[in-house]
Amino acid sequence: MPEILNPNPSKLAMVPFVSVDDMMKIVNTIGAPKIIAEIAEYVEADFLRWDQFDKTPRVAAHSKEGVIELMPTSDGETYGFKYVNGHPANMARGFQTVTAFGVLARVDNGYPVLFSEMTILTALRTAATSAVAAKHLAPKNSKIMGVIGNGAQCEFQALAFKEVVGIDTVHLYDIDPAATKKAVHNLSNSGLTVIACKSAEEAVTGVQIVTTCTADKQCATILTDNMIGAGIHINAIGGDCPGKTELHKDILLRSDIFVEYPPQTRIEGEIQQLDDDHPVTEIWQVMSGQAEGRISDNQITLFDSVGFATEDFSALRYIRDQLERTGHFVELDLLADPDDPRDLFGMVQRASDK
Amino acid sequence: MPEILNPNPSKLAMVPFVSVDDMMKIVNTIGAPKIIAEIAEYVEADFLRWDQFDKTPRVAAHSKEGVIELMPTSDGETYGFKYVNGHPANMARGFQTVTAFGVLARVDNGYPVLFSEMTILTALRTAATSAVAAKHLAPKNSKIMGVIGNGAQCEFQALAFKEVVGIDTVHLYDIDPAATKKAVHNLSNSGLTVIACKSAEEAVTGVQIVTTCTADKQCATILTDNMIGAGIHINAIGGDCPGKTELHKDILLRSDIFVEYPPQTRIEGEIQQLDDDHPVTEIWQVMSGQAEGRISDNQITLFDSVGFATEDFSALRYIRDQLERTGHFVELDLLADPDDPRDLFGMVQRASDK
Repeated sequence: MPEILNPNPSKLAMVPFVSVDDMMKIVNTIGAPKIIAEIAEYVEADFLRWDQFDKTPRVAAHSKEGVIELMPTSDGETYGFKYVNGHPANMARGFQTVTAFGVLARVDNGYPVLFSEMTILTALRTAATSAVAAKHLAPKNSKIMGVIGNGAQCEFQALAFKEVVGIDTVHLYDIDPAATKKAVHNLSNSGLTVIACKSAEEAVTGVQIVTTCTADKQCATILTDNMIGAGIHINAIGGDCPGKTELHKDILLRSDIFVEYPPQTRIEGEIQQLDDDHPVTEIWQVMSGQAEGRISDNQITLFDSVGFATEDFSALRYIRDQLERTGHFVELDLLADPDDPRDLFGMVQRASDK
Repeated sequence: MPEILNPNPSKLAMVPFVSVDDMMKIVNTIGAPKIIAEIAEYVEADFLRWDQFDKTPRVAAHSKEGVIELMPTSDGETYGFKYVNGHPANMARGFQTVTAFGVLARVDNGYPVLFSEMTILTALRTAATSAVAAKHLAPKNSKIMGVIGNGAQCEFQALAFKEVVGIDTVHLYDIDPAATKKAVHNLSNSGLTVIACKSAEEAVTGVQIVTTCTADKQCATILTDNMIGAGIHINAIGGDCPGKTELHKDILLRSDIFVEYPPQTRIEGEIQQLDDDHPVTEIWQVMSGQAEGRISDNQITLFDSVGFATEDFSALRYIRDQLERTGHFVELDLLADPDDPRDLFGMVQRASDK
């Protein structure tokens, strides 16, 4: 039974809260690879009903240190939003680059039904989304993935691609060898063959899939044109704001490009380097069979992923469905719920008599 | 000392949470009239530094039953947003028309520093804002206010105008006599002379200030032209979405109109009935002396208030400053904070060993 902070408020007033501690327990109860695979199913199910969602580019507040964003969406029945920050300089100061939390609410009465940490959940859903896209875009029987950037997202990507795509080997590279060492250690019991590499070139040699997940706020060139051979699937995760890219433009020009929501990706993704009318395919169309994904062995496919509100919605929807299964949440007294809805003042006044 | 839900996470991971119960305790510790007056000071202080704020119309998700909105703003140092719903049909179903919660965060690293209920706090800040505006716009020595609509906002308005403007008498009218009876009862020890009226006409007779705070989602005409004499200040609170107005257009044409943030008020306020270029004055300009407020005894002034993000920011800022003073909050384990920021996965993994 979840802990009840305040037993007095009516049930209507209470909103389930999943703390970081709860989220870790949920992940460890279900198992990281399995939870990513299950979230991937929710993500894909929601991409398959793309038309039902209200879609808008995220609402960003930029500052010189980073960005704070709100990412709302709704399927007409349930509303969800995520608060997320992106502060590249945080890591050096001992903070997370990205922290997040999110809310689901009922559209019919506006009452929140879930409040959850989303720093961990975002890591899970990002990996899940990458893997779902790769299932449709990567070469059949892909076995080896190179991961460039071995920060907070790295291990989640590796597990997602093992579980959903079927890879058995990862090549890891980071400009900081300590990051690679950390990831190698964390993946030691994952069932993956893990190879620490001394260069990005080494990490992409012999792979079918390349994942880039670096975090610097600048136009970096993590992958240059000569590093990417025919037939590769590129999963570009690390681009998430204007002025932040990871791939050389020449790679983009050789690739078939798949995105989540074009109005947002044109601003934030790798394709900010290209003309505004450069052709891209929406990934939901591939999933639903309305557009082709990979059509040849020589094709370079690029999933230019920036993260979209529906993916957070899917992840929150999944967590809500696990509350009963796991019991890892507390009830928060978040909503004022007077017996007579018009008597908000009286409720406050009477509280002083208690 | 606040209750700590989980003693293990680092201090960085914890965010103070003010529940409904905490908010009621804060209000009752400080006293409702005093807290409204203190919030009014924060609201005015922030209006006086209007240029420092990022301003945007709220981000609304409309449905047939109502609206869910996110209202973000930032002063460059602190970021804040409110989640708020408006569902006019809720009351008949036993839910609050408006529920809300909000967050403050540090701009420099994106970390939330306060999570608070805002159903009660919105009622407080709305009343505080009305009173601050009236201080600049109402006739000098106003003593009597008519309040049309005796729902959840009514008593807060009455106390705010007593405390900040100096009124001593309220006339109350609602189409439902039970609402008026509730408000009369709640205000019985307020020090105000409270008069229940049988019609809107009766409620506005002999007053210097008229406050309209009804909640129907339709173009209603709560006030008709013949009800408003020269010299009145109208405080129109109830308009907060497209298609929802309270005043007859002819009143608007006779009034000098003051608003919070024109791009939002043109969409949501009473002035949606007027041409897009109808002159309005921004209330912050009156407060700062850059524009004139009331200039004659015969002038009808109208504060066409829809509620703006900076007011919520001010209210949250006030509550944050009361945490130490009152001790009414708990710490929520909301932010994942691994020892090594890059080792999010390892933190989750190690939690299973506990």
